[in-house]
Amino acid sequence: MSRTRFHQGLDELKQKLLAMGGMAEQAVERAVRAFQTRDLTLCELVLRDEAQINATEREVDQLSLDLLAMQQPMAVDLRFIVSCIKINSDLERVGDQAVNIAQRILEMPEHSQAEFQADIPKMASLATEMVHDALNAFVTADPDLARSVLRRDDMVDNLNREIFSVAESTIGRSEARREALNTLIVARNLERVADHATNIAEDVIFWVQGADVRHRATE
Amino acid sequence: MSRTRFHQGLDELKQKLLAMGGMAEQAVERAVRAFQTRDLTLCELVLRDEAQINATEREVDQLSLDLLAMQQPMAVDLRFIVSCIKINSDLERVGDQAVNIAQRILEMPEHSQAEFQADIPKMASLATEMVHDALNAFVTADPDLARSVLRRDDMVDNLNREIFSVAESTIGRSEARREALNTLIVARNLERVADHATNIAEDVIFWVQGADVRHRATE
Repeated sequence: MSRTRFHQGLDELKQKLLAMGGMAEQAVERAVRAFQTRDLTLCELVLRDEAQINATEREVDQLSLDLLAMQQPMAVDLRFIVSCIKINSDLERVGDQAVNIAQRILEMPEHSQAEFQADIPKMASLATEMVHDALNAFVTADPDLARSVLRRDDMVDNLNREIFSVAESTIGRSEARREALNTLIVARNLERVADHATNIAEDVIFWVQGADVRHRATE
Repeated sequence: MSRTRFHQGLDELKQKLLAMGGMAEQAVERAVRAFQTRDLTLCELVLRDEAQINATEREVDQLSLDLLAMQQPMAVDLRFIVSCIKINSDLERVGDQAVNIAQRILEMPEHSQAEFQADIPKMASLATEMVHDALNAFVTADPDLARSVLRRDDMVDNLNREIFSVAESTIGRSEARREALNTLIVARNLERVADHATNIAEDVIFWVQGADVRHRATE
């Protein structure tokens, strides 16, 4: 494999990983919108697209492996490829959280309309922005952006705690119970999304900062 | 780096990953024991040992990277090293689940003694056995054992569903509410442990079966 083909491979890898990120974010956004609107069509879309996310995950893994195998990579490229493998795995699990939310909505026995104050949309937009920025921090090799993702994780945790409190105080009323429990679980799913963003951001700091890949980012 | 030193490095990597697995399993076992007994000393041990798990995770990552950088690995070794990086990340997150459980116990305002029927110990032993077997499937390159881990994930999911049902029916009684909520969350944490075991098992099948590493396992 020539140096040129190797670099084309790296570009392809980056594009595939960005596509993976876009699909995972979209899945979470759809799942949360479905939770708000009880639009079951959105749930079906999330479930349908899971296969595509899984297929892309395998493509990223395989391409990474091919690139590692075909040429003795330089340190900077090695770290980039290994980071792709790790981040890829987090993005697939972000998609899994969307699937969990969609499945929960589909299992709800009826259209519940209980009053329940929990800012799931805020939590969702925080968490998906974290994923977006973490991935962006990676492809632009921006450790400061990665660190801003880490700082935001506390905000998501606090929102999760608030929602837990609200759920706990609402849950005694039988007509609101299922809604409260479901909201609790969706909040946990979103917390996991934020955790994955945090993992990606940590990888950016550990793997990307270890070698000076800013060079690549500005190429 | 000579071939011999390279193979010593691979052995060291395997040993470190096994140590990582042992620490993660122990953390979950301690956290669940603490949940059963409300032994806060066990919680403190779990929190204390998290730093060690995180440090070992970084050592495994660094050693993997060094091995990838120092020699053009053969396909079989390449897959082994990349698998270590992926599995390492799952093991660290198993440890995180133990920390989550320990923190929840420490936040409980009082020693709750509500009657609440949920088989958390069974779920915990299933989940930790899955982690143990998935890691074992990796180091012995045994895809059949990996597949048996995948099959067991459904059992954990079913237990989680059962616990959810029990929680939902108990949660209306105010004296049992916090206990029910906490049990629900611990069950979710254990489900995540099982998910990580499943991820490891999938990696064994994808990464290890892709190249014939059984050769290495029986060396």
